[in-house]
Amino acid sequence: MTINTLKDLYIEQLQDTYDAERQLVEKMPQMIEHANHPELRDALQKHLEETKSQRKRLEQVFEKLGEKPKEHHCEGMAGLIKEGEEFIQERVESDVRDAALITAQQRAEHYEIAAYGTLRAYAQLMDRQEDHDILSQSLEEEKKTDQILNDIAIKVVNPDAAAVR
Amino acid sequence: MTINTLKDLYIEQLQDTYDAERQLVEKMPQMIEHANHPELRDALQKHLEETKSQRKRLEQVFEKLGEKPKEHHCEGMAGLIKEGEEFIQERVESDVRDAALITAQQRAEHYEIAAYGTLRAYAQLMDRQEDHDILSQSLEEEKKTDQILNDIAIKVVNPDAAAVR
Repeated sequence: MTINTLKDLYIEQLQDTYDAERQLVEKMPQMIEHANHPELRDALQKHLEETKSQRKRLEQVFEKLGEKPKEHHCEGMAGLIKEGEEFIQERVESDVRDAALITAQQRAEHYEIAAYGTLRAYAQLMDRQEDHDILSQSLEEEKKTDQILNDIAIKVVNPDAAAVR
Repeated sequence: MTINTLKDLYIEQLQDTYDAERQLVEKMPQMIEHANHPELRDALQKHLEETKSQRKRLEQVFEKLGEKPKEHHCEGMAGLIKEGEEFIQERVESDVRDAALITAQQRAEHYEIAAYGTLRAYAQLMDRQEDHDILSQSLEEEKKTDQILNDIAIKVVNPDAAAVR
């Protein structure tokens, strides 16, 4: 893809994020299956549903642009998922694994906070107010999920992991 | 590596972050070379120097733990760098490329915000106050760099990119 204008870059970044969300929708069930604490399982399950809605929101943005929803392989998310998989494949004690799953998922949230933050700034600059509002919803969900995972880590999972001898 | 305790996970995450910083130290000069706006070049150059200090800080933490500084291949950062390289290899107009370089670098900053945030929380929980303070310095630098890049994007780079027809 040749990128000549900010709109080209915007579309490329939408495709990248659309693919990142697909990768998460595919991978999160495996993370949920390996999570030990019910609080963590519930939070991940809830975010899996949100992630599916975020894909739908991106489809709305593509539609408004007159573009067919298309995926551009997201190398960043692929790397983050590979990293998270190490904790599932390696021998890790179950409470400590929960701490590891949280740190892996928080990296994914931060990836998306950066991605939606950029997309929203481009939409604003191109006077695409509706896109801006749709993208803001997903941005806020990502920030909230990061905060929820933080709270679960600090209050429940990390103390349990620290108690393992 | 078998991860049995939170301390094992802490060391593994220190090794992962130590490797992530190395990858950035190696890759950032190429990004700086391809940056067009002097404000962006200067900000990246300044952060390259900070990144080298952050590696040194991690060495201090390893030392306090009685561990030799060791790298554990960071798949997450490898993916993020691969993603950023696409913008250097593909045909991208120069002001638009600057916008793309910023979004790529902000993803790296967010990766490290998540990484140092986790490391700092583990240090706190394990009563390793000195580690906590050292890691906090790097965390604050990453957050500040993300903000600086945001300002350059909003005020200078994105408007120039949007003017390209």
